[in-house]
Parts: sequence; structure tokens; C-alpha cells
Amino acid sequence: MNASSPIGIFDSGIGGLTVVQSVMKALPGENVIYFGDSARVPYGVKSPETINRYAAEITQFLKDQNVKMILIACNTVSAVADETVHHIAGDIPVLDVLSAGSKSAADSGSSNIGVIGTLATINSGAYSDSIHKLNSGAEVKSKACPLLVPLAEEGWTDNDIARETLKIYLSDFMDNGIDTLILGCTHYPLFKESIIKLFGKKNISVIDSGDAIADMAAKTLAEKNLLNTSHKTGEFKCFVSDRPQRFQELAERFLGTPIDRVNTLTL
Amino acid sequence: MNASSPIGIFDSGIGGLTVVQSVMKALPGENVIYFGDSARVPYGVKSPETINRYAAEITQFLKDQNVKMILIACNTVSAVADETVHHIAGDIPVLDVLSAGSKSAADSGSSNIGVIGTLATINSGAYSDSIHKLNSGAEVKSKACPLLVPLAEEGWTDNDIARETLKIYLSDFMDNGIDTLILGCTHYPLFKESIIKLFGKKNISVIDSGDAIADMAAKTLAEKNLLNTSHKTGEFKCFVSDRPQRFQELAERFLGTPIDRVNTLTL
Repeated sequence: MNASSPIGIFDSGIGGLTVVQSVMKALPGENVIYFGDSARVPYGVKSPETINRYAAEITQFLKDQNVKMILIACNTVSAVADETVHHIAGDIPVLDVLSAGSKSAADSGSSNIGVIGTLATINSGAYSDSIHKLNSGAEVKSKACPLLVPLAEEGWTDNDIARETLKIYLSDFMDNGIDTLILGCTHYPLFKESIIKLFGKKNISVIDSGDAIADMAAKTLAEKNLLNTSHKTGEFKCFVSDRPQRFQELAERFLGTPIDRVNTLTL
Repeated sequence: MNASSPIGIFDSGIGGLTVVQSVMKALPGENVIYFGDSARVPYGVKSPETINRYAAEITQFLKDQNVKMILIACNTVSAVADETVHHIAGDIPVLDVLSAGSKSAADSGSSNIGVIGTLATINSGAYSDSIHKLNSGAEVKSKACPLLVPLAEEGWTDNDIARETLKIYLSDFMDNGIDTLILGCTHYPLFKESIIKLFGKKNISVIDSGDAIADMAAKTLAEKNLLNTSHKTGEFKCFVSDRPQRFQELAERFLGTPIDRVNTLTL
């Protein structure tokens, strides 16, 4: 691997394209390979054993593509299969959205942090553990929000149903006065504006883990002299394990731009 | 296989336990084996190729369990992989929720029928085709309702969000004056009461495909002299390909009673 090698990014589905969007914005010259495990999505409700097996298969695939860095764009994998990915990746640097989001929250100095995510992410307690390692004094409150992924996929991110759902899920946070909220799932950046409106702009700082991992990737690549210094816009290769219904519509919503070509690959 | 052999029932996840509930009510003496492919749920957004592959694996598993009948409790499999199941099942009778629900609607004599289901079920046009084969004059309107499955799993089946979501999904049906509605997804019976309230009891007849397939199974077994005439309550064996988070809570909600023991099996 060298500076022109691609960055590998993976997620349980196509939600991780929000992370690709963040990386492309922060590092426009980098080549990117994405793998979305859309045949086996969602990971959020699966057992740790199953999630570890899937993460291992995908890491091996990215390694075979000669990536110079692996970004785990899936919060569930970050929470329960991080060690598996590091083990298989060997000397390829691995970053994950959970560590990146936690670090960003801890660095903010807030002592009243909220985290939202899938059932598996929240039940693992991984965000809370990760933040406490960096700032043992911070109070971290967590809430699983299983409906937000299907709402994002339906495109209902700022209608009455989305607002009412957010109000139910986030009511404890509002009562408890958190001032910093981590979006602990790749689909959730689509609700960022609705969440800010719900809390009021001056009451809440929302951390998008995709932006956090993109910043961290830029720093790590610079440290390792692996930044792609080409002035051309990087290439983007997109692999999915199944081409779901409404793929183009969803992909465009998450990536922010249309995708020309997608490769379907069963691992 | 003989009369004491079990009935095999399968679904992409644990939603098919609503069908098990219907079968246990109609045929309390029958032994039942259930397979829920919870590691690979949902099928609704996957490609036909993938769905056919999964359906073939599960049919082979049930055949190996010496079942006397196979009930496809999954509308997506009924819509896109019915032939595959019949082919592998050989001389074991196969019924599916889609044919059962369609027949029940056609038999009702209604000429203004609505169908709701997952994206794959609705996009396949299978309900409409199936009803038209039985009653070419019936008008069939279809609507995909992707949010209903996650709402049912969250237990939000009669709160404001459920009502508002149903109102959005069903507004065209209300404007067009359908009088018969097929619940074309195993999760949807949980919304039956809310739907009836929305339309008004005298305006709508709601067809639960689980009840329809249970009636059809009773008739088919009687015709083939395969009814279990034992006076003991039948045994229930439950297999899942992964034990999802909140499994007990969800299974109880769909089956109507708690499940004692569950076997996890990767196909």
C-alpha cells in the first residue's frame, strides 16, 4: 500500500455512504472503496457472534483490495467487532465512527453528553465506555432509536411523524439538559436539522460521527505520510452485497450525489 | 411423513409467528416447526435472486425435518420464490400467505380491494396478479408501507405515530373507497384494530393472511387424510438463524404467548 492506495470504508448497509460523503468533503483527492453489506443489513439487531463473522469477511475483502486505511462506518461493528477488524487488518490503520464520535464529544469538554443509536450499539454501552476512558467525569446518557433508520430510508426526516418520533426518543435528554448529542448511527445525520430545531440551536451541539472520522482519517494519513497529494478528484468504487429496492434513491440521499456504477458482490 | 408429522412454517424473521398463532388456533393438535431467518431479515428490500436462494435453503431444512406440509408465512417469499419452494418441496404440499390472502379476498366477492405490504411484495405485483386470476373484474390497489414493520417491532401499533403513519399510507385507499384490505405482511395483523378504527368498522373488511392460510391448511390436510387427530396440544419447535435483541419481547408480541425454548441455527 502507498499514498495512492484507496481508503476502505464499510457499513452494514448503505447508510455508511454518509461517512463517504464526509470523507470526500475532507479529503477530495483520496480514492475510496466502499462496501455496504445490504444483503445482511441491519446488523443492529443481530448477535455479537454474527456481527463479528460479517465484519471479518468484509475486512478481508478490503485488505485484498490493497487499501491503505480502513474506516468502520458502522456503529454496530465499531461497538462489538472492533477487535476483529484490527486483528485481520494487521498493519493497516483502522479507525471507527464510534471512537471518532466519542473523542469529538470528549474533546468538546461537555460533561452532559447524549448518545443515540441502534439497539445493539446502545445496549453494548460502547459509546459510554469510550467517552469515559477519555473523560471520566462526563455524564453520558444513551437512547436506542430503532425507528430512525426506516424513517430515513422512507425519506421522512422532517415531517410530523419524524418530529413526533424524535420528541418521544429525545424527551429524556431534553428533560435532563444534555448539551452535546452524538449521532451514533450512519443514518442519523439526515435528522440533524430536525434535532437542532427540536432542542433549539443554542441549546445543543450535535456531533456527526462521519465528520469526526473524516477529520481523524486526515490526521492519521498525514502522520503516516499516506495522504494522496494528487490534484485529481479521487475515484469512488461502490460495492454492495445486494442491490436493494430503491437503491439509487437511497444512495443519492445518503451520499449527497448520484452514484453512476455499483458492483454487487456476495462475500 | 404421516398425520403426526409436523407442519413446517417459515418466514424471513419472527413476524411469521403471527401465522403460527393463527395455525395453533385453527389446528391446536398439530405439531409445528417454525424457522425464522432473523439473521438475514428483512427479505423485503433484497433482490429476487437472493430471496430465492434463502427460500431454497429453508425449504430443504424443513424437508429434512420430515414435515407433512410447508406454509410460506413470508409474503416476500410467496411473491418472488414460490416456485422454488414448490420445486424443492416435491410432493410435500406447500401453501403460501399470498395465495391464501388473495383467495380469501377474491372469495369475498369484493370488486374494490386494497393490499398493503413490503416494497418487494408490492413491487412484484403478485397480490394483484393472484387476485385477478380468481376474479378478473376486481379492482386491486396496492401500497408499500415500509415503516409498519419497524413500528410493530417498536410496539407502536396504536399511538399517534402509528395512526399518523397509517393515515399517510392508507389515504389513497380511503379516497378511492376500497371495502376490503389484505394485510400482506406478517407484521401487519398488529395494526388490524388501528386500521379498522381509521376506516370505520362498517366500511372495511380486513383480511389477515395468517387466518386465511390456517383455514386453507386445515382443508388441505383433511383432504389428504393428514390431519393430526391426537387430543394432545401439538408441540412447537422454534428455530431462528439469529437470536435478535429483544427476541423474547418480540416473539411474545407476535405469537401471543411466551416462547420457552428457541434453537439458533445457521443454514
